[in-house]
This record gives sequence, C-alpha cells and structure tokens, in this order.
Amino acid sequence: MSDIALSKSKSQPWGSEPIDLGIGRPDFRLLPLAELQQAAAHRCSLADTTCLQYASEASGSPSLRGHLADFLIRHYGSVVRPERLFITAGASHGLDLISGRFAQPGDTVFVEAPTYFLALKLFQARNLRIVSVPTDAEGVDVVALEHLLEVEKPAFLYTIPIHHNPTSVTLSVARRRKLVELAEKHEFFIVADEVYQLLNYEGETPIPFAALDNSRVFSLGSFSKILGPGLRLGWIETEPEHFSILSQCGVIQSGGGINPFTSAIVESAITLGLQDAYLARIREVYRHRCAHMIQVLDDVLPRTVSFTKPKGGFFLWLKLPQSINSNDLLTEAHAFKIGFRPGTLFSPEKDFTNFLRISFTYYNETELEWGCKQLGHLLASHLR
Amino acid sequence: MSDIALSKSKSQPWGSEPIDLGIGRPDFRLLPLAELQQAAAHRCSLADTTCLQYASEASGSPSLRGHLADFLIRHYGSVVRPERLFITAGASHGLDLISGRFAQPGDTVFVEAPTYFLALKLFQARNLRIVSVPTDAEGVDVVALEHLLEVEKPAFLYTIPIHHNPTSVTLSVARRRKLVELAEKHEFFIVADEVYQLLNYEGETPIPFAALDNSRVFSLGSFSKILGPGLRLGWIETEPEHFSILSQCGVIQSGGGINPFTSAIVESAITLGLQDAYLARIREVYRHRCAHMIQVLDDVLPRTVSFTKPKGGFFLWLKLPQSINSNDLLTEAHAFKIGFRPGTLFSPEKDFTNFLRISFTYYNETELEWGCKQLGHLLASHLR
Repeated sequence: MSDIALSKSKSQPWGSEPIDLGIGRPDFRLLPLAELQQAAAHRCSLADTTCLQYASEASGSPSLRGHLADFLIRHYGSVVRPERLFITAGASHGLDLISGRFAQPGDTVFVEAPTYFLALKLFQARNLRIVSVPTDAEGVDVVALEHLLEVEKPAFLYTIPIHHNPTSVTLSVARRRKLVELAEKHEFFIVADEVYQLLNYEGETPIPFAALDNSRVFSLGSFSKILGPGLRLGWIETEPEHFSILSQCGVIQSGGGINPFTSAIVESAITLGLQDAYLARIREVYRHRCAHMIQVLDDVLPRTVSFTKPKGGFFLWLKLPQSINSNDLLTEAHAFKIGFRPGTLFSPEKDFTNFLRISFTYYNETELEWGCKQLGHLLASHLR
Repeated sequence: MSDIALSKSKSQPWGSEPIDLGIGRPDFRLLPLAELQQAAAHRCSLADTTCLQYASEASGSPSLRGHLADFLIRHYGSVVRPERLFITAGASHGLDLISGRFAQPGDTVFVEAPTYFLALKLFQARNLRIVSVPTDAEGVDVVALEHLLEVEKPAFLYTIPIHHNPTSVTLSVARRRKLVELAEKHEFFIVADEVYQLLNYEGETPIPFAALDNSRVFSLGSFSKILGPGLRLGWIETEPEHFSILSQCGVIQSGGGINPFTSAIVESAITLGLQDAYLARIREVYRHRCAHMIQVLDDVLPRTVSFTKPKGGFFLWLKLPQSINSNDLLTEAHAFKIGFRPGTLFSPEKDFTNFLRISFTYYNETELEWGCKQLGHLLASHLR
C-alpha cells in the first residue's frame, strides 16, 4: 500500500475538508464576537455620536490613541506616547502608506530573505525595486547589510523583528541598535512589522523597535492578530513629524481619519478590559497549540527535516533536504489532504525552494496533529 | 450702530459658537447611534465570526452586497445586481481607487465647473491634469464638452449628476444619454458621484447613472449620507470586468476586502429595516430644514443675490453680485459669527469668486434661521 493510499484511509473527525497548515490566520472559532458585542453595546450606550461622524484628526481618534497607548505600555513594558500613534486600517495598510509616501516608484527597498509575501506584493504594486538582505538565527545579517549599503541606497528596510513571518526568529537587541545606527548614517528608514510583539509564549522579548524612539523608525502594529482581522484597525508608532506625509492618502482624506466607528468600539474593548483578557486567552491557546505541534513534528518528521522552535507568533519554518522542492511537494500534498506555503513565496528571487511555512493558530490541536502526521507521511514517502 | 455691532448684540440660544453654514455634514444630533446599537447586537448574536476574519472577496462581503442590492432596488426603482457592487470605504475612497487605477499620473480628467473640492484634492494628489467643463441649469454643458473632446482625451469625466455639490442641479436624462454616447465614442469613463441619489425632497428624480448599465460608467454610492460617515462604507456600481483592477489597492489587499466587521453591522441595519426607517426620517428632517432655509433666505437676502432652490441633497449655491468676492466676505463673516464655503474652492481655476456654498443639514431650523439672518445682515452691510 502506497503512502498516498494510506493517507486517504485515515479518517478525519472534521469531515472531508483538507487541513491547510499554511493558513496564517486566527482560528474562526476563537474570534471574540461576544467581546465585541459587549464593546459595541457599551460604546453605543455612551450617547456620543462622534464615532458616526467624519473624523476630526487624520492620525485617528484621539481617545483611541490614548487608551491604545495605555494598553501598549502595560504589555510592552516601555513608554508609548499617544501623540506618536497614527491609526491605520491594519499593519499592511500602514506598510502601503509608508511605501507610497516615503518611497517613489523605482526606489530601492531592502527586505529580509525570507520575508512576508504580502509585503513583496505591496512593494511590487508600487513599482519599488526590492533587494534582499540575508538573515540568520539572530535576524538581519548586519554585516551583509553594511556591505550592501556601500552600493545601494534604500528608501527603507522592511523588517519583521519579532517572531518573524515565516522564520519565527527574533532580532537581537544588539542588531536592533546597529540597524538604527546604519539607518541614521545612510539616511534610510526602518519599517518594523511588529504585529507579533504581543504574542510571546516563552521567555523575555526585546522591547519593540519604536521604543528606541528614533525618527528613522516606523513600527507597525495591528488589532488583526490580537482581536480580529475583520476590524481593519492597526497603528503606526513613529515621530509625529511624519504624520502630515502619512495623511496624504485617499482613504484617510475622504473620511478625515481611519474607521471612526470601529475605533470607538475597539476603544471600549480596551477600557472594559476585554482586550487584555482576550489577549491573555489566545496567548495561552496559541502557546499550547505551538507546543503540541512541536511535539508532534518531533515525532513524525524525518531527521533530515529541521526547524527553529518558535517562542511566539504564528509560524514554523521547516527546512527540508536540499533535494526537495517544496512546490513539487505541495502538488503531492493535495492527495494527503494537507497544505502549506512553499518557501519560494517568501523572496522575490524565489529562493528557499527546500523550505516551507506552516502555522499553529488556525486549527485546534486535534486537527494540527492530524495535519502534522500527514505531513510526516508525505515527507517520509518523498525521502524514501 | 454698524451692522457688525448689531450682529454682535444678537443672542445665540446655543452659546457663543459660530454657525458655520458651510459645513456639508450630517447633524451630530441625528446620527443613528440607537439603530447601530441594535444592528451590532443583532449581528453579534448570530454566532457567525466571519465578520471578524480576513475578508474572502476583494469586492466586499457577498451577503452585504446582496442586501444592499435589494435596498437600492427598493429606493432607486431600477435594477441593481449584487455582482455589479464593489464595497469601498466611502465614495471618495471609490473615487480615489478609480483615479489610481483607471488614470495614470499626467493623464487628463474632466470635472464640472464648479465641482466638489475634495475631488479636486484627490486628483491633484494623484498628479492628474484637471480640465473644467462648463455647467448650466441642466448640469454638464454637453455642447461645450463635445468641443473639448476635439482637443482633449480624458481618462474620465467626474460628474455629480444628482443634487450637485455645490450647485444642487440635477443632470437631465437627455444629457445623461448624451454623456454615455460621448464616453463610448471617445473612450473615456464616466465617474458619477451619486451619494445624494436617495436624498430627494421634491418631485421625481432620474434613475441613477449605473442603471444605464454601461461598462463606461462607475457610479459611486455611500452610507455616509444615509447612515453615518464614521462607518467608512460605500460602494461602486459598475461592470464586474473592472473589479480585478479596482482590487489592486493596499487597503483592500491587506484585509482581503473593505471593513468586514462594519459591513456585517450595516447589513443587519438593512435586513432589520433600520436603514429604510432612518433614511425616511432624515429625508423628512432635511426636507423641512431645506424648505425653512429657503423661506428665510427669501426674506433676508438682498434682491441681487440669487440661488436655485434645491430639490434634494445638502447644499445651496448663492450667486452674489459680480462686485463681491466671497473670500473677502468670509473674512468679514467671522464678526457675524457665521461661515460658508467661498466659490473659489470649487474649481481648479479658482473661478466663482462671487458665489458661496451653504448647507441645511448640519444645524437645526433655529440655528439655520439665525445663521441665514446673519448672512443677510452681512450681505446688506456689504451691498449698501
């Protein structure tokens, strides 16, 4: 009996749907509908219609920014000033805003290799020239970066410094300081995508990039990972001197500011303590799912497959033997009723052919275990 | 006693705040907080978390589009197909999307003279070349347009065909058909800003531009004028063949589609009948405010000042004697504790120096009456 036939004979408790381990989203079943119901009821009971009017500040609701700063101070353990927060429709909207306003078509931007694939799509749509910088177990390779800066002049460096997507690596504090030093010397910006900063499952995390309090740094945050992506709400933390440039965006100018109604509801979720409680809850759920996935993978993966154990975030980045192309593997994965994201998605050069990304947030432990075992079968059949 | 001193002696029942008749927004006191509380409670009670997840369609929530089509069919009295609706973050976001995707920097766009000033700002931000087309009491002057088309090739014509901002004029049906004929012949698009289509206070209105069902037409709609601007939700009605081009926008790509959470709440407002009831209510309020304002203006304005009586929308467009520059008048208006929008705002050439725009939606009848009387005093003092 072939492994494929074997895989097909396994019964799935959730029906015939495949388990796409590649999905990097929150679990539908965990999304905080009850919390948002309570927050919306609270907000609407305040008899304040401001949230239904055009916004008065391009940087977003002043009261949300105040309560968001309080929330971030509690969790970051560092100073966050409300006047440095600029409300966006999510981290990728923030990234797109910066790409449109702090770079011109044809400009060069540096990305980590590998990096988040939607960022690559955003840069390509804005006709930016993408140059990859190598990374290692501590994040961006600053020596390689310094060499690149001798021949290239980027508008900005896009980095995911904490629980990286896809590698789960966290950039060391020493390298953060070095990046800022280089940004000042070579006059480029650092755009730090820190949406996983609050999803830490083990040990201490460095304080966020924005806490370095430098005008060369934009820190991107989002409610998508800690409350719900459907809210379309996030923030940029940076120097207010950049705000007037960031505001020159059709969506912001047309409404006066981003999503006043949702901002007001999320503000209530913060002031009522619902955001704190929900964050604590999903952090525990994800911590357990991550640990369980690691345990199962340790059991089922061939010894020639390796990965760094995540300490937070959403992802595992599996390194396969050089001989395996994960795109080919994905074609076969359909028969095993699983999916993943092939490594080539994560760089403009389509490198990382023998890598793949999986996530532990979208499915529960039973589903993840089944999916990981199927992945083990698939790899075993391939490495035979 | 000078008129200024006279004006200062008038007591204002609402304290010392000036009455800025120029504000073109809904009245804070009329915004439907109770309706949205009910809609949010209904939506969250459905135990469906889809609205908190990333969106699955770039054109927006399929169920919202279905219910929105039903709502529009009821009120437009013409066919609206859900598959022709593309959800936006408001009409101006829709306009910005079209400006970015269906025109290139340097391209020419035609606007009406006068036109909505935010549209001019959006076009300028996208480095479009703006050419004004004259208008008269029936809207765009199609003869002048035809002559312009002999020497210019616009990417699109931006028109406000119904209850125009600022003139309140409605484009005749014959001219609508002529515009479509010219658009087909000269291969340009028509971008029809129809956010006042549902705010009709008197007589019959033409069916909306989108009902002409032509692939050259984009019709812009919005919940801002009929529910609340703070929701940041609107739509484009056009041929689905344009959707993939419209979707290439950072805000849409990052979330998968515009504002899923707000979309779900607004969908409930429609299905519960709250949107219908609220629209009927504000239409009555605005109808009365408009009639009252016209009556007061007829009493207090010098005979040399004229205006077309609005049959819907938000605005009155006052024509002053040629000798008066409304920018100068605005400087003096501060002493009279009133404001308005000077005519020069409404064209790139800064024409219409002897016009001004006022609105009847933001204030109640008492406030409007006081403001109009002050305007009468101001004009009388100037025309003495």
